[in-house]
Amino acid sequence: MKKTCKEHISLKEILLLLKENIVPLNKTISLSTTDSHSVFVGKILAKDVYSERNVPHYPASAVDGYAVRACDTGYASPATPVKIEKGNFLWVNTGSVVPENFDAVVMVEDTTIDEHSLYVFNAVSKGTNVRPVGEDIAKGNIIARKGDLLSIFHKALFVAAGVKEIEVKAPPRACFVPTGNEIVDINTLKELKQLPPGKIPETNSVLLAELFQKWGYSLDVLPLTKDDPKALGDILKLAIKDYDLVLMGAGTAKGKRDHSAKVLSEQGKLVFRWVRMKPGRPVIMAVVEGKPVVALPGFPVSTLVASWSVVYPLLQLLEKGKISEEYLSEAIGTREVIKVELGDHYSARQGVSEWLKVQCAEINGRKMSWVTSSGASSMMPLTEADGFSLVNEEALEIPKGSLIDVWLVRKNNWERRAVYQGSNDPGIEHTIGFIRAKNADLIIRSVGSLGGVLALARGECHIAACHLLDPKTGEYNTSYIEKFDVKKEWERVVLYKRLQGLIVRRGNPKKIKGISDLAKEVVIVNRQAGSGTRVLLDYLLGKANIAPTDVKGYENIAVTHFDAASKVAYGSADVALGIKAVADALDLDFVPLIEEPFEIVIPKRHFEHYGVKAFLDSINEKAWKETIINLGGYRLIR
Amino acid sequence: MKKTCKEHISLKEILLLLKENIVPLNKTISLSTTDSHSVFVGKILAKDVYSERNVPHYPASAVDGYAVRACDTGYASPATPVKIEKGNFLWVNTGSVVPENFDAVVMVEDTTIDEHSLYVFNAVSKGTNVRPVGEDIAKGNIIARKGDLLSIFHKALFVAAGVKEIEVKAPPRACFVPTGNEIVDINTLKELKQLPPGKIPETNSVLLAELFQKWGYSLDVLPLTKDDPKALGDILKLAIKDYDLVLMGAGTAKGKRDHSAKVLSEQGKLVFRWVRMKPGRPVIMAVVEGKPVVALPGFPVSTLVASWSVVYPLLQLLEKGKISEEYLSEAIGTREVIKVELGDHYSARQGVSEWLKVQCAEINGRKMSWVTSSGASSMMPLTEADGFSLVNEEALEIPKGSLIDVWLVRKNNWERRAVYQGSNDPGIEHTIGFIRAKNADLIIRSVGSLGGVLALARGECHIAACHLLDPKTGEYNTSYIEKFDVKKEWERVVLYKRLQGLIVRRGNPKKIKGISDLAKEVVIVNRQAGSGTRVLLDYLLGKANIAPTDVKGYENIAVTHFDAASKVAYGSADVALGIKAVADALDLDFVPLIEEPFEIVIPKRHFEHYGVKAFLDSINEKAWKETIINLGGYRLIR
Repeated sequence: MKKTCKEHISLKEILLLLKENIVPLNKTISLSTTDSHSVFVGKILAKDVYSERNVPHYPASAVDGYAVRACDTGYASPATPVKIEKGNFLWVNTGSVVPENFDAVVMVEDTTIDEHSLYVFNAVSKGTNVRPVGEDIAKGNIIARKGDLLSIFHKALFVAAGVKEIEVKAPPRACFVPTGNEIVDINTLKELKQLPPGKIPETNSVLLAELFQKWGYSLDVLPLTKDDPKALGDILKLAIKDYDLVLMGAGTAKGKRDHSAKVLSEQGKLVFRWVRMKPGRPVIMAVVEGKPVVALPGFPVSTLVASWSVVYPLLQLLEKGKISEEYLSEAIGTREVIKVELGDHYSARQGVSEWLKVQCAEINGRKMSWVTSSGASSMMPLTEADGFSLVNEEALEIPKGSLIDVWLVRKNNWERRAVYQGSNDPGIEHTIGFIRAKNADLIIRSVGSLGGVLALARGECHIAACHLLDPKTGEYNTSYIEKFDVKKEWERVVLYKRLQGLIVRRGNPKKIKGISDLAKEVVIVNRQAGSGTRVLLDYLLGKANIAPTDVKGYENIAVTHFDAASKVAYGSADVALGIKAVADALDLDFVPLIEEPFEIVIPKRHFEHYGVKAFLDSINEKAWKETIINLGGYRLIR
Repeated sequence: MKKTCKEHISLKEILLLLKENIVPLNKTISLSTTDSHSVFVGKILAKDVYSERNVPHYPASAVDGYAVRACDTGYASPATPVKIEKGNFLWVNTGSVVPENFDAVVMVEDTTIDEHSLYVFNAVSKGTNVRPVGEDIAKGNIIARKGDLLSIFHKALFVAAGVKEIEVKAPPRACFVPTGNEIVDINTLKELKQLPPGKIPETNSVLLAELFQKWGYSLDVLPLTKDDPKALGDILKLAIKDYDLVLMGAGTAKGKRDHSAKVLSEQGKLVFRWVRMKPGRPVIMAVVEGKPVVALPGFPVSTLVASWSVVYPLLQLLEKGKISEEYLSEAIGTREVIKVELGDHYSARQGVSEWLKVQCAEINGRKMSWVTSSGASSMMPLTEADGFSLVNEEALEIPKGSLIDVWLVRKNNWERRAVYQGSNDPGIEHTIGFIRAKNADLIIRSVGSLGGVLALARGECHIAACHLLDPKTGEYNTSYIEKFDVKKEWERVVLYKRLQGLIVRRGNPKKIKGISDLAKEVVIVNRQAGSGTRVLLDYLLGKANIAPTDVKGYENIAVTHFDAASKVAYGSADVALGIKAVADALDLDFVPLIEEPFEIVIPKRHFEHYGVKAFLDSINEKAWKETIINLGGYRLIR
């Protein structure tokens, strides 16, 4: 009976297999219109809704004024007002009943009144300003139809029409079973920030709950379950009874603890496993007791893309009986799809769809994008992404400058966002808050000092920053910049001076006093080629007559000061050349060596850019200056 | 001290006055990352967030495999595997700790193992498959910045980074005070559908609550308050204490019970009243104890547009300190802004901005839109609208065919939506459900039989429908259709036969037996010129030698069968010519007169249209035929 499980399938095959194996729920639930907690928006009507009453249900005045008999107003005009005696008119408010003996309402503005009489300045005809019974909604009429997607207007309409209950398609009841011996339930932790080695806080349930809420569904999180086939089997049996869709965490790779496939094939039928996408490859979909079960990969970004490509279409199919054509765009929560230029060359893997997280900006009229990270384990690139792009299976190399489609997930104030490329610097990081306060934004790309100058020369940023020492002249930046600034149109500003030195662990256990100690029994972590700090290190080593090959760890690379200092803090290295601010932030010791100018370079034509102006305004603020000084190791010279 | 209240202001002046008079809240609240109920999405960070831990916080294996010392794997390759003795390797799962004595992990796929030894088929270098401490997130790093708009990814990121609490800008606390002697709290009603004359169910709080939720805010609804200055003053005092923004219902016009302006100017300062827009004119904005109060107009559509144009920018200003440039589009919840052709001439009022509700469809490549209603009292046009358009103050006449901007609020499956113009018919109304089930849609425009044929001739619908009797020939439709179907490309299908007759109240109190009784002491309600039923009435009156001037109520117009029958049901008329299905639906008596063919007309080139096909498929379904028969007075002849 059991068909073979499909393996290593494409994104499109997912949809085919879902449609083949999943029967829509076809369940309905009733919602009360008077329950302020019942959610109407996004639900789909399962039955036509008929009005239970007339709106209005009595002849109602449409204005504030006097109910009269139209014939009594004769040929009234401002020049020839008509007088109506007491008893033959009645004050009515907007919405009041117009009694049977009257058939029109004169607006209060068209009357004056004295003790005995009403004076009418504009004649009315029969029915004027009287809303007949059922004018807005007639009792018995269809007011909403089967298949209608409920909007924010429907609930109020139904209440007005006297409809107490409606039938909607039942949203699938879904649950998530977090699994894994290494996973810790965050609600059992006293201290979120302290965890034993090997233990990981359970965050996928948080991400999935947010995702479901955004999609308009709810998700129950079941208790954390160990990597044990018996325990997994038991909770699956329980979950299948209560839910229309069961999601299971991790356990989808081929490791020793990956029991999902076994448990699922014991209780039901595996439909597919492994999807040809990156990240998110290890997904399993099965049908147990006629109900879909999806085992999701453990890394957060993998969970996310697997949810977009499997869970969302599954929810649609269960609830609506069909998967919308733009399901990925909907799942992602796209605001807009745009075409942008890819800022860096991208090497894709053929045969695998790749999800890219990108940041976007516009420079000199070019809309550009940069891939922020392709890792599956880190969530940071998600919060920093402006959008997502899907590289299809056929793609191999995507050259820099290619146009790619980006599903934007947040509003991009293009003309207010400046791009910074160059040296990594904590002071710049702390400037973003000031720029944001001015309704502008800054993208920071830490590509090293030389990378920044090159990007500026190619017109791919608004601001570059560097601290490049010329070993020949001992001067900073000038010789590098002049090579590219052929039109002499770049303005240079020394932002501040930074103290560079050796970052070592607290208490300086290896007793490192200066550059010459780097040739001894210590391991360093270096910075990438092209970074100002790397240039500085090479200069200092040269002056001390130390060959790079004599320095242990010279080939270990970190791409930011923070990265480098972290490696010292957590023992992968003994020492790093870096700035004092980072040593201070991580509570490390610091051996000062040299003070260097940190310079920003801005082409003149960018001075009118909204984001650049916000940047330049920020660095003149008193609060900004205080912030920089408090970081430690910075000296303002302007 | 008090400045004068501005009156009759434009939409733009609203923003200026808000900015002049409202001070942003500048309050923050802390949110717990471990509280599953706390809403993060849409909030704005008030402070930078720093990571409290490293992710990973120990050297973690990135794969399932064996932890080894890299140097032990030598030059291992598939051809020259390297053997590692027990004790010198250790099984690790993805995410497990890589103990200090190991420095790399070999993927399980690149190994085999026996009792004593591990065989490695691919050498690894130091650090391979080991995620160093802080690789994803380094402790002390900024992971989200002041001003960031929180997305669905942030909560999980914060939990992963060990962040227990964050500070966000406090959303304004808002409340709504429903007011009005004629208003009834729906929660006090046993029967939603039965209300005494003059009483109206309170629905604006329902609409506002839905609106606030969509905007990401919450709204407390305070008790319904009478139209009494003392009561209003008291509740306002209480509300101002507890809330940052107070909304009050109705009481904004100039009627006898409109006390809002008085109460507000006693307790605070009126900022503006009356906005030059339609609907939504009677709005009052005041500042009481430094807090904004908005008195909203009572009609639901007026409440809605006043909320879009005053309340939403006010919330933005309070929370974010600024109003976004596209605030109207955001307030409306626009999916897309499009330019479409206006399907009918529109006469605007100069000096007043007008809100139009429109339905849209594409016919022969033309994207068209029709205004559904301009009334402020009815909510039906809201649920039926595809979008909204704002006619600016300067506009006077907008000719048919003009391009207008429409803020689309729902997804429009253009190529699947057919447009029907022509005779009003309950059978067609009931066909929509069947069409929707086929993933298509139908817009019905009841423009009368003649209107339908004319629209088809102008290429403004896909399907027309008519039942036009030619008094000369006694034949239906042909003479009318042939006038316009010059290319002989229209296909005609008799959908069914409908029984036309006289609709009278239950028990036929006026003892109406036939057409000749219409000249007696009875009042009729007629249908509009150009409708098939009007043509029929004129024909029948002619045959009976009755002049229209002898028929009371001949000038009373209803534009649908339902409208006409409702007027009979609720006493505005004694009799209407109409179809049996409607008499049955409204439980009225019916005097049969004539059976007429109800014909649909479709140009051949529309037969391939997705929506037209769905229509034609529907009318061949058994379930559809049963539905039609059950309506009463229909006979299927196909």
